[in-house]
Amino acid sequence: MPNLRLALGQIDPWVGDIGRNCDEVVRWAREAAAAGAQVVGFPEMVVTGYPVEDLALRESFVEGSRAALVGLAERLGTEGLGGLAVVVGYLGRSRGGRPQNCAAVLYGGRVVSRFAKHYLPNYGVFDEYRYFVPGDQLAVVRLHGVDIALAVCEDIWQDGGRVAAAGQVKAGLLLTLNGSPYERNKDDVRLALVRERAAEAGCAVAYLNMVGSQDELIFDGGSMVVDRAGEVLARARQFEEQLLVLDLELPAASDEHEDGAELADGLKLQRIGLGGEPQERPEPPQVGEIAEPLDDEAEIWAALVSGTRAYVEKNGFRSVLLGLSGGIDSALVAAIATDAVGAENVYCVSMPSRYSSQHSRDDAAELARRTGVHLRTVPIAGMFDAYQEALGLTGLAEENLQSRLRGTLLMAVSNQEGHLVLAPGNKSELAVGYSTLYGDSVGAYGPIKDVYKTLIFRLARWRNAVAAERGETPPIPENTISKPPSAELRPDQVDTDSLPDYELLDAVLDLYVEGDQGRDAIVAAGYPAEVVDRVVRLVDTAEYKRRQYPPGPKISVKAFGRDRRLPITNRWRRG
Amino acid sequence: MPNLRLALGQIDPWVGDIGRNCDEVVRWAREAAAAGAQVVGFPEMVVTGYPVEDLALRESFVEGSRAALVGLAERLGTEGLGGLAVVVGYLGRSRGGRPQNCAAVLYGGRVVSRFAKHYLPNYGVFDEYRYFVPGDQLAVVRLHGVDIALAVCEDIWQDGGRVAAAGQVKAGLLLTLNGSPYERNKDDVRLALVRERAAEAGCAVAYLNMVGSQDELIFDGGSMVVDRAGEVLARARQFEEQLLVLDLELPAASDEHEDGAELADGLKLQRIGLGGEPQERPEPPQVGEIAEPLDDEAEIWAALVSGTRAYVEKNGFRSVLLGLSGGIDSALVAAIATDAVGAENVYCVSMPSRYSSQHSRDDAAELARRTGVHLRTVPIAGMFDAYQEALGLTGLAEENLQSRLRGTLLMAVSNQEGHLVLAPGNKSELAVGYSTLYGDSVGAYGPIKDVYKTLIFRLARWRNAVAAERGETPPIPENTISKPPSAELRPDQVDTDSLPDYELLDAVLDLYVEGDQGRDAIVAAGYPAEVVDRVVRLVDTAEYKRRQYPPGPKISVKAFGRDRRLPITNRWRRG
Repeated sequence: MPNLRLALGQIDPWVGDIGRNCDEVVRWAREAAAAGAQVVGFPEMVVTGYPVEDLALRESFVEGSRAALVGLAERLGTEGLGGLAVVVGYLGRSRGGRPQNCAAVLYGGRVVSRFAKHYLPNYGVFDEYRYFVPGDQLAVVRLHGVDIALAVCEDIWQDGGRVAAAGQVKAGLLLTLNGSPYERNKDDVRLALVRERAAEAGCAVAYLNMVGSQDELIFDGGSMVVDRAGEVLARARQFEEQLLVLDLELPAASDEHEDGAELADGLKLQRIGLGGEPQERPEPPQVGEIAEPLDDEAEIWAALVSGTRAYVEKNGFRSVLLGLSGGIDSALVAAIATDAVGAENVYCVSMPSRYSSQHSRDDAAELARRTGVHLRTVPIAGMFDAYQEALGLTGLAEENLQSRLRGTLLMAVSNQEGHLVLAPGNKSELAVGYSTLYGDSVGAYGPIKDVYKTLIFRLARWRNAVAAERGETPPIPENTISKPPSAELRPDQVDTDSLPDYELLDAVLDLYVEGDQGRDAIVAAGYPAEVVDRVVRLVDTAEYKRRQYPPGPKISVKAFGRDRRLPITNRWRRG
Repeated sequence: MPNLRLALGQIDPWVGDIGRNCDEVVRWAREAAAAGAQVVGFPEMVVTGYPVEDLALRESFVEGSRAALVGLAERLGTEGLGGLAVVVGYLGRSRGGRPQNCAAVLYGGRVVSRFAKHYLPNYGVFDEYRYFVPGDQLAVVRLHGVDIALAVCEDIWQDGGRVAAAGQVKAGLLLTLNGSPYERNKDDVRLALVRERAAEAGCAVAYLNMVGSQDELIFDGGSMVVDRAGEVLARARQFEEQLLVLDLELPAASDEHEDGAELADGLKLQRIGLGGEPQERPEPPQVGEIAEPLDDEAEIWAALVSGTRAYVEKNGFRSVLLGLSGGIDSALVAAIATDAVGAENVYCVSMPSRYSSQHSRDDAAELARRTGVHLRTVPIAGMFDAYQEALGLTGLAEENLQSRLRGTLLMAVSNQEGHLVLAPGNKSELAVGYSTLYGDSVGAYGPIKDVYKTLIFRLARWRNAVAAERGETPPIPENTISKPPSAELRPDQVDTDSLPDYELLDAVLDLYVEGDQGRDAIVAAGYPAEVVDRVVRLVDTAEYKRRQYPPGPKISVKAFGRDRRLPITNRWRRG
């Protein structure tokens, strides 16, 4: 069987920065050529970044992408990379002028093949029917005697389509370009899917994903190649840019179907021959790396760090600012931020009120000592008194005031010094509205907004254990982890005064939010009716707060934000 | 030709309040029966309210809607309304178990016909591919010798489909149930469309829209009936609940196609005979009201008032709170709020700083005097000094601090007294980010967030003129309208220090935001390149602020929010 040396460019495109993205493709293509690859793939819409949302509706942006594609092909030719087949995703246009999620093959200084994604996802975080019209071709590239069938992302998540068509034409390899957002355990789902599709298509499958992050979405990489029997031949590391290179022995191309033939789901075969003689497998062959998948906590941590780093960097900031209460949420955010941008770029403010305990101040100081982040203390008593003198607030209004004074203080420091503010809210709080709008919710990015409180504790312990293993100082003070959570907005307050125990709360939230189960179904699953009723009501009536919350990294199957789109005005009270 | 007495129930369903909505259908059906109608229509998804967004994905909600439909039919029967054909929209389910945007005919105490929307909109504010699978039938009800073909909203906005099928079966009337959101001048577009469809189907068309408001969307009613020649036979008032009743002489039903026949676009005829002899036209016949459409300003004003009233009421509030600066934006919001919930429920706070001019304080007081809203004054100097003592802020940080102190103050009063806070930001400001996050942007609802500054001035003058015509006191002080706009956050500041003149700014914004034109196209249209570059950059980099802004009524073709979904992280700088 002929040999093909394949490279997968698992890189991080930036939305809108077409110039930078094309530079990156050239840089990595150069590496692929240096490694002897004959073909190199890059992710879905690598030219524009992904997802571009309503930028896809802007004529000037579509034309910018299309022009850049042609320029990229020419440049690869000029730079002596014309002999390498480069497969890239870009934003294109249908014959009728509608935007399309496209991919192209660049070879010999030219764009030699273009096609559009066939299946468009329109669920969860995806809205591709809003933007794109589907493609209707199966693009196949014949290179060194091997037929490579091409696909984009959703094309392999649905039955039939290009997977079936690749099988019909007896392709040697199915190469699919992805922009597949991270969710917990999704790498296992992807591996099972890719194996199944390899069996269905009867050929090896190369699954290429991007890394980096775009607003709420994290891309975790984990690109892989499996042979037709489902054996993993190569697997890239998660959350890291990497060029995965390997030799593949693949079946010789078949001429059973002619170019233009009609295949499964009405797809038309569009085959292009790039030439090259079939090649012998070199000895020794280039074997692909097979990276071990990260375990659950490590994977989530990497997602949160990667999302935070990308948001800060891509939005032009160098440093972050957050309030440090001594509690576990802000401590975890500080630890994530430290891993993301370095302790020297993390600025913290302790803002004690008269209700703040001494242990809270001590725990905040201890965290700064352990991590090396900057910490200053600004008591809010003076501001509090000034408001109280004018307004004489009581109860919840008095509690919220303290939180908002801190929010205003953080924003003032941010404006004065130019740091990006991180919001410390977790998913349990956001779900039940246990946060103060314009108070602890202020910020440009919420690193743990999709992390339930019980998972916060697990991650804190895990991060400390990793540090201990490495012989480093665990970042989070033990007392911060072990003390009962409290907002400290009135004397002796603890979270359980007004909320169920977090184990119970998170279990109910998991059924209601991620599971979309109704109230009756959750009660039937064995949870106390009064707790379920209360939680459902709290979640429903807090939608207005979530709508004004900053974005943050999605790690769950249903993150608040793009994933879960409920009306604010909503009188449904039965879950 | 047989006569049919048709009633259109132009009512306001509340999202999620299935019990209330069914009560309302019964109440209005009773009126229709009392008026002698033989058939009465209610809006798209009247049972659940519209749009329900991700509630459609919740099993318990879909089942709640389906059960309510059956209960509603029974109740209509029990209440002696079984002889009236009642057509209602509801949330249903396909044979495969997927949610559908359905409608049903209730007659004789039973659900006698069910069908689903055929064309699903998935652009602008609509995401119906996310939720629904399309229907594939043409439901026709034969009543008193007339065939009534039924359709839902988008079904008549696209070519072919049910319009063509209604023509094939020679229906006497095409009745279409809508949840069609308001946009400026959309009533003219709808009228032209309905006329065109009447010609295509070769029959009268009854277009029934809802009124009220759901989060960002306003429903303006304006239901109408046109005959096959396009003549308007009846037109309901805009923004008001109303039962429109009229006699129609319609062609007798044709048996050319059998029940189950295949029609245009693969639709299957599903005809049900409800009986009743063909009836003579009564003398005198019931003639439908033909309401005059509102003029541009009146229509926009009604939309803003209607949206504000609905948001307050449906979210369980009775009163609103806003900061009154003496400037035109907050003055206009106060006037809208007064018309929406009554002056006695409008609470205002004047929050002068040392940079506030005497005329601003006077103008705020004058507005309160004219409108009768509550006004208190709380100077922010004490709070300001407390922050400055701790932080020593300068420049922009000092300006923003004042705005945030006011935001915190308003939220404190809101928490203490239970008012819903209104945000005074206009579309020009929101577009270029000329507002302070957590400052003047705080609020649950932004009544003028989709209104450009130039239009703010027009509306203020218009509202004053209307008052003068009615012999009432014009609400907005003349000085508020005539003085140069200023944020008054530093000495002698005016908006034009940092922004182009509003006429120019709004013209560029109109091309960039509503028109989705790129930078080059706007410059080519004759606008100064340096202004366009600056505006494009300001708009692009303010996306993070808009994402945290409260909802407000959509009046334009492209409102910020559901309509315009751009990434926050976005490096595209060429418009």
